[in-house]
Amino acid sequence: MTDLAAVKAALRTQAVETPSWAYGNSGTRFKVFAQPGVPRDPFEKVADAAKVHETTGVAPSVALHIPWDRVADYAALARHAADLGLRIGTVNSNTFQDDDYRLGSVCHPDAAVRRKAVGHLLECVDIMDATGSRDLKLWFADGTNYPGQDDVRARQERLAEALAQVYGRLGEGQRMLLEYKLFEPSFYTTDVPDWGTAFAHCLRLGERARVVVDTGHHAPGTNIEFIVAVLMREGRLGGFDFNSRFYADDDLMAGAADPFQLFRIMHEVVGAGGLASDVAFMLDQCHNIEAKIPAIIRSVMNVQEATAKALLVDRPALARAQAAGDVLAANAVLMDAYATDVRPLLREVREESGLHPDPVAAYAASGWAGRIVAERVGGRPAGWDA
Amino acid sequence: MTDLAAVKAALRTQAVETPSWAYGNSGTRFKVFAQPGVPRDPFEKVADAAKVHETTGVAPSVALHIPWDRVADYAALARHAADLGLRIGTVNSNTFQDDDYRLGSVCHPDAAVRRKAVGHLLECVDIMDATGSRDLKLWFADGTNYPGQDDVRARQERLAEALAQVYGRLGEGQRMLLEYKLFEPSFYTTDVPDWGTAFAHCLRLGERARVVVDTGHHAPGTNIEFIVAVLMREGRLGGFDFNSRFYADDDLMAGAADPFQLFRIMHEVVGAGGLASDVAFMLDQCHNIEAKIPAIIRSVMNVQEATAKALLVDRPALARAQAAGDVLAANAVLMDAYATDVRPLLREVREESGLHPDPVAAYAASGWAGRIVAERVGGRPAGWDA
Amino acid sequence: MTDLAAVKAALRTQAVETPSWAYGNSGTRFKVFAQPGVPRDPFEKVADAAKVHETTGVAPSVALHIPWDRVADYAALARHAADLGLRIGTVNSNTFQDDDYRLGSVCHPDAAVRRKAVGHLLECVDIMDATGSRDLKLWFADGTNYPGQDDVRARQERLAEALAQVYGRLGEGQRMLLEYKLFEPSFYTTDVPDWGTAFAHCLRLGERARVVVDTGHHAPGTNIEFIVAVLMREGRLGGFDFNSRFYADDDLMAGAADPFQLFRIMHEVVGAGGLASDVAFMLDQCHNIEAKIPAIIRSVMNVQEATAKALLVDRPALARAQAAGDVLAANAVLMDAYATDVRPLLREVREESGLHPDPVAAYAASGWAGRIVAERVGGRPAGWDA
Amino acid sequence: MTDLAAVKAALRTQAVETPSWAYGNSGTRFKVFAQPGVPRDPFEKVADAAKVHETTGVAPSVALHIPWDRVADYAALARHAADLGLRIGTVNSNTFQDDDYRLGSVCHPDAAVRRKAVGHLLECVDIMDATGSRDLKLWFADGTNYPGQDDVRARQERLAEALAQVYGRLGEGQRMLLEYKLFEPSFYTTDVPDWGTAFAHCLRLGERARVVVDTGHHAPGTNIEFIVAVLMREGRLGGFDFNSRFYADDDLMAGAADPFQLFRIMHEVVGAGGLASDVAFMLDQCHNIEAKIPAIIRSVMNVQEATAKALLVDRPALARAQAAGDVLAANAVLMDAYATDVRPLLREVREESGLHPDPVAAYAASGWAGRIVAERVGGRPAGWDA
Repeated sequence: MTDLAAVKAALRTQAVETPSWAYGNSGTRFKVFAQPGVPRDPFEKVADAAKVHETTGVAPSVALHIPWDRVADYAALARHAADLGLRIGTVNSNTFQDDDYRLGSVCHPDAAVRRKAVGHLLECVDIMDATGSRDLKLWFADGTNYPGQDDVRARQERLAEALAQVYGRLGEGQRMLLEYKLFEPSFYTTDVPDWGTAFAHCLRLGERARVVVDTGHHAPGTNIEFIVAVLMREGRLGGFDFNSRFYADDDLMAGAADPFQLFRIMHEVVGAGGLASDVAFMLDQCHNIEAKIPAIIRSVMNVQEATAKALLVDRPALARAQAAGDVLAANAVLMDAYATDVRPLLREVREESGLHPDPVAAYAASGWAGRIVAERVGGRPAGWDA
Repeated sequence: MTDLAAVKAALRTQAVETPSWAYGNSGTRFKVFAQPGVPRDPFEKVADAAKVHETTGVAPSVALHIPWDRVADYAALARHAADLGLRIGTVNSNTFQDDDYRLGSVCHPDAAVRRKAVGHLLECVDIMDATGSRDLKLWFADGTNYPGQDDVRARQERLAEALAQVYGRLGEGQRMLLEYKLFEPSFYTTDVPDWGTAFAHCLRLGERARVVVDTGHHAPGTNIEFIVAVLMREGRLGGFDFNSRFYADDDLMAGAADPFQLFRIMHEVVGAGGLASDVAFMLDQCHNIEAKIPAIIRSVMNVQEATAKALLVDRPALARAQAAGDVLAANAVLMDAYATDVRPLLREVREESGLHPDPVAAYAASGWAGRIVAERVGGRPAGWDA
Repeated sequence: MTDLAAVKAALRTQAVETPSWAYGNSGTRFKVFAQPGVPRDPFEKVADAAKVHETTGVAPSVALHIPWDRVADYAALARHAADLGLRIGTVNSNTFQDDDYRLGSVCHPDAAVRRKAVGHLLECVDIMDATGSRDLKLWFADGTNYPGQDDVRARQERLAEALAQVYGRLGEGQRMLLEYKLFEPSFYTTDVPDWGTAFAHCLRLGERARVVVDTGHHAPGTNIEFIVAVLMREGRLGGFDFNSRFYADDDLMAGAADPFQLFRIMHEVVGAGGLASDVAFMLDQCHNIEAKIPAIIRSVMNVQEATAKALLVDRPALARAQAAGDVLAANAVLMDAYATDVRPLLREVREESGLHPDPVAAYAASGWAGRIVAERVGGRPAGWDA
Repeated sequence: MTDLAAVKAALRTQAVETPSWAYGNSGTRFKVFAQPGVPRDPFEKVADAAKVHETTGVAPSVALHIPWDRVADYAALARHAADLGLRIGTVNSNTFQDDDYRLGSVCHPDAAVRRKAVGHLLECVDIMDATGSRDLKLWFADGTNYPGQDDVRARQERLAEALAQVYGRLGEGQRMLLEYKLFEPSFYTTDVPDWGTAFAHCLRLGERARVVVDTGHHAPGTNIEFIVAVLMREGRLGGFDFNSRFYADDDLMAGAADPFQLFRIMHEVVGAGGLASDVAFMLDQCHNIEAKIPAIIRSVMNVQEATAKALLVDRPALARAQAAGDVLAANAVLMDAYATDVRPLLREVREESGLHPDPVAAYAASGWAGRIVAERVGGRPAGWDA
């Protein structure tokens, strides 16, 4: 028997961080389709993120991406967020868009480029200090396109050295989240291509170095929930970058491509006590062709639904069936939770928190979509290049 | 016993078309790294392509991409090419970079957008008329990102209708080459995702509709040489877009990632008489981090080497071993050809054609690299956006 | 607004064929784990299949596999089935387990082996005549393991010749269903590896040659519902072999690995009128570690649930959103149906048909599991080898 | 300039271990095709392995698989090997073929099954003591087929406990090699699915626990040479199970599917000093349709050829090009070595060692193939089941 009150309580305290860059324009190498009303600066991005929190109640922080979100006064940005009921979350570095980074950043053969990249990472820690952010998230585009192009092990040495420098600069309550990715933009080797590599580096760095699992960054067939379980067992799961993929790093809305997988991931998280832990739940998505704010709202709701189903799993019954080796019964317990329509439950949770039961409708009714189109005229729409 | 004179003759007549866009800047969604000396207009692209032909002797045509290669006077462009010993090859359409194409082009739900797209395709045929091109190559980015976004079958109907219109416009000696691609930029459905779909459309269109095999456009594990063999058996192989991939549509240099695969493909081509047929051999690559012209020269050489090895296969011995069901002997015959170092043979072929035996060295010695960097100052470097 | 009565009517008339071999022992190359109570002959397999139909009401036929289901008197087997409320469905051939087939069957380089294989296929048609089966399902393990081992095109010629012979032998109401599979047991080329190849052969054979989609037979990332839609548009979808896979041809219970994919497939089927067509819905699964009959019951229920959800899609609303290019709204319409818990509806449908609302519970209550363990003692348990 | 004498010296000292089971019958779940002349006991397997060493000169040890190679007197088996110029190599455990292992072995929910499995592993160490083997190779088929079937983390705990028990039993000069595999025979989770999981367990066990890389055990697109480089940097590469795959764990001859990949792997090995280290080079293959001994000879030769090419890489030139960031030049240095036909060099090496220059011809001339067919009559041919 599931304790519904406990389920609701857990759902009410869930927090899903949204990424500032998802509010701006994005696309593929073939085309970035511009959308009207897109923010033109970090303050407007924060305002959009506030709208997502306002309607869902579970998106209380927004991640920054430096330099895209560089501002003169980070304290002012943090206050702006606070005024809107939000806080600044993870700070994400960018060591892939400067011309110097053609052959890598912290793994570049040239020490001068590496120094520049480390300098940027240290700047990100400064920004964390200024914004009160807990987490520095590092994703490196570093890698090679051709066999022989560079020395794989030498690049690992350079990487280790850079990470150690940055880790040493972290304040006491701050963490380093190291993200891995199979490929893109590098097409032969990637310097942090899998969780094993990220894990090995974190081990050498210290307790506050953790691995980030981006759900779109794996080879076909990879069992992501297994990785989640193993990393939690090792105490090294830093957080998630949620999104969906059918093929590669498609960056579609979380829960859109394989909602059952998202449920299985949340099942491992819940089972290991991850909901009430320091694991960070973040979105990292691109809304290339669909309206951005509603897509983010929908993604947050998808994470909520997966979480609700995971919370509804009858764990004692599951444990009994597992212990008995009853394959079908154990699977059925899990599937019963997944088959449940949790939308009514989530509507209740929202209403009990004083929210509109349907965030999508609430957003539509808010008039925000029309307002930003009308007001955000002129200036340069935010995108991956600024 | 292989007839070396025949092998050399075949190698001398090989033709690999290079794509105008590979001479311009390219990159990933994360960054386009600009290179110095990149062409600023189609005339300069053709000049670079001429350099590749000059050094390799087997790259006599250059493919255009419209609108990136739009010029006021196509006859002038064709003359410019001819003056440099080149001809204009395939015309490639682009129905993915206009804002109207956010949800597709010829498959778009809105008839007005479809009309616009068809208009562009017809313009491409006009350009073929003006340049004397034989082939219209169609690749559609059309597709959807989310389940339910559009009706799969309805989109097929729209596609069929558009193709029929364009096919009807072709002149007698002109062909339509239909390219398929598993994914990107669409991430749920792609309207022409596999050779079967392209083939089905070609069948309904007529004899001069053919399928193009881009070696980077398949799901992991797909046996490309099998598709080549089947399409040749059906008389529907229009040509190749050669490039390399380790992961997705990485667009690396042909032969760089899996030279054995390229050899197996050429083995099927040679075995079915494809070298002396109307099959088009084209490159379609991006040189994101490496020097562009030398990378294209190297790619052409890689295709030559694969072809030379395929020509060296002792086919009577192979047929005997196959007929006898001798798995190891048959495989050994093929591997013997592959293990052969064909670089000396190709050096001979080049010297007998009056070329420098080493195209890379010849290019380096030509001074072209320095000249274009010095001369191509100002203006807008060519790229995927222009 | 969905017409619930129509949905229920459609669900009541659904038919999912179960495969005789799924009731026998199966495993991997590493181990076949025997289960107690497994049938020892085709009559016992049919009895088990009858149990699945008895509890679910939608599994009225059972597929045979020859020679595993060879009996002296097929008419007697058909009568036995009829007595149990069942009919004999598709006849499946086996051209992979005789020592002669080491290098292939209908594609073998040796004409004598090909003749033997064709002889077996013709025997299958004889059995269809005797059992009243409509469909001959052909899956060929033919292929090669090593490059060069055999001639790809020559094998296609042999395949075409064999298919034509068998097709010519079919009676008027009989069909040939040609199955494709990416790989296994062949590991380099497979002679019918994809839907395109199967489709091309069917086109040359005639109207009653159709393609079978086994949901486990594709490369990673393949969009199966797209193939379904295209084949239905071409009038060439013969039927399904349902099962689940996380990696390769895992043959898990249908709906177990990706229930959302099964729903999307059924959405395409329903949208194209496939429920009330001659498309065959079959299971093709292996229950290596779980109890077989309950696993098949569960699989049938999973297909029912996916179908119910597909029937609940608000198609007018979907069409409106699609026509308007409203990506999020269109996706939401589809997801609303998927999020629905259809188990109550299916319980109603069963009760209205006089069945127990829960087939799993009904089976447990029937005592069949205990009875077969007690009674099926001695003899040789059925498996893939007999 | 490469030092040819050093290259030859390195090639002469290379050692590739062959697996006893590759000499016996094998197949897929669909069929095991029996071959004449196959060994009927471990002594005959060792005799075949001796033949491979006799002809190649670089296969001085043979791996055992327990219980397939259980004998009454292991010292006698070791003496038999020594008499034939061979030694007993790695001992491989088998915890997947007993009926008790349906739901796993060391990860099984039932402690009694886990005890049994650990008992078997300890028996393997006893055999190592008796045969003088250095390495215990552990591959676990453990995993689950269905979501919910068992608790992922609990299984990790059980695994860790079992490994610790066995590691504690190892003698001073003995090592534990832990193998990972993406999937098969488990189809949802595998308890050691990737190098990261194997690495994490090895770290906790101690210095003599190492990871084994089987080249067929990865997800599509995985860069294996990167893993090799990282494991060597961490001092945790135990060895290789070489074989080839186009799709999954196809177990084809090493070097048959992607010879360039094998070269890239050996390039990393050579670069990190792995040739003259304690890294074990083993084959793990199945010769389902081809003659077994010649296939193993060919595989050994393929490893030799890849090694020779890797030794020929002009490393100073490579390092210079890498340091200069010259992508094309660095790639060209690597490709020059790969393009070299090393067969003449290897013929020389063999002749200088008093061997026939062509091992395949030497084997054919030896008459062994005919002799074993004639002599090995009666008895039970060895296979995966015995």
